[in-house]
Amino acid sequence: MHSLWVNILCYIAGILVVISMLPQVIKSFRTKSTKDISLSRSIIYAIGVVLWALYGILIHNGPLTAMNSVGATLGIMMLILKLKHG
Amino acid sequence: MHSLWVNILCYIAGILVVISMLPQVIKSFRTKSTKDISLSRSIIYAIGVVLWALYGILIHNGPLTAMNSVGATLGIMMLILKLKHG
Repeated sequence: MHSLWVNILCYIAGILVVISMLPQVIKSFRTKSTKDISLSRSIIYAIGVVLWALYGILIHNGPLTAMNSVGATLGIMMLILKLKHG
Repeated sequence: MHSLWVNILCYIAGILVVISMLPQVIKSFRTKSTKDISLSRSIIYAIGVVLWALYGILIHNGPLTAMNSVGATLGIMMLILKLKHG
C-alpha cells in the first residue's frame, strides 16, 4: 500500500481516538453522573494525552500539537468532571 | 532535548493512553453498570484503536502492533460491555 495512505490511516485513527472523548465529556457534563467511569482510567488517560501534547511541541509538529492539545484539553475536562461528580 | 528521550516520551504517552482502558474494562466488568459511559465514545474509540493496530501491521512495526493490538482488544471489550449493559 502507498505510504501516503498508510500515514493518512494513522492520522484518521489518532483523530478518532482523540475526538471520541468529546461525546463522553458532553454526556458527563449534561448528566453530572460519572460513577461508572473509572478514576484510574481518567487519571492515566489525562497524563498520557498531556505527554502526547508535550511530544508534539518538542518535535515542532503543528498538526500533531493541535490534535494532541485538543486531546489533552478533553482528557483534563473529563478528569475534572470525574473528580467533581465522583 | 535529545531525540531519543523525545521518542521515549511518545512511547510512554501511547502506553499510558492504551493501558488507561484496562481499569475501565475491569470496573465495567465487575459492576456490570455502564450507563454513564457514552456509546458514541465507545464506538469511535474502538474504530480508532482498530485502525491504529492496522497501521502498526502495515508499517511492519512489531512493538507498535503489539501495543495497538492490546489497545484494540481493550477498546472492543469496552464496546461489548457497553452494548451488553447499556
